[in-house]
Amino acid sequence: MPTETAPAYTYPERDEIRIESVLHALADPVRLRIVRQLAAAETGEIACGNLDVTVSKSTLTHHLRTLREAGVIMGRQQGTARYNSLRLEDLDALFPGLLNGILSAPR
Amino acid sequence: MPTETAPAYTYPERDEIRIESVLHALADPVRLRIVRQLAAAETGEIACGNLDVTVSKSTLTHHLRTLREAGVIMGRQQGTARYNSLRLEDLDALFPGLLNGILSAPR
Repeated sequence: MPTETAPAYTYPERDEIRIESVLHALADPVRLRIVRQLAAAETGEIACGNLDVTVSKSTLTHHLRTLREAGVIMGRQQGTARYNSLRLEDLDALFPGLLNGILSAPR
Repeated sequence: MPTETAPAYTYPERDEIRIESVLHALADPVRLRIVRQLAAAETGEIACGNLDVTVSKSTLTHHLRTLREAGVIMGRQQGTARYNSLRLEDLDALFPGLLNGILSAPR
């Protein structure tokens, strides 16, 4: 089964998420672009291959890892695809208003 | 007159403030500590010498410059003292909720 061979990612628990790490993760144009796309996604998630970024696959992997390890996104493996979504509930609970403030920023 | 010999700092106009720069400026423990102190200050401003940080004067100067150039703080010279304050109105207009979300973060 594909889900059994997928890499086992680790995610910080909610109480392990630090504001400094979240802000650092978000303080990058590419990662901010990813977060905006995830926030706007109808289903709330986007497969890695469908993210609209102009970076190489390995660079994208690095950015997704930074977001994941900071506690900003989660990943869900389905077959060979990995779907990314924002940890909206955790982020809103920890830093109410933060994400909306960032997403409403002028481009 | 001291105000005439004070260094002339430049500040970004409101429409020059970029979310990436603000997030980068805030993604540092010392700078976040400064921002929290300014937010909690009764008068809304704190002189450089009265900020409660454990870094050298030159390091503090660097951190204040980063916050200033990102558009997070303003400075006001009075005699030999420089008073720092948050650009609350600008930040709330550009990124509503951002600062409150950050300030309400668990320590």
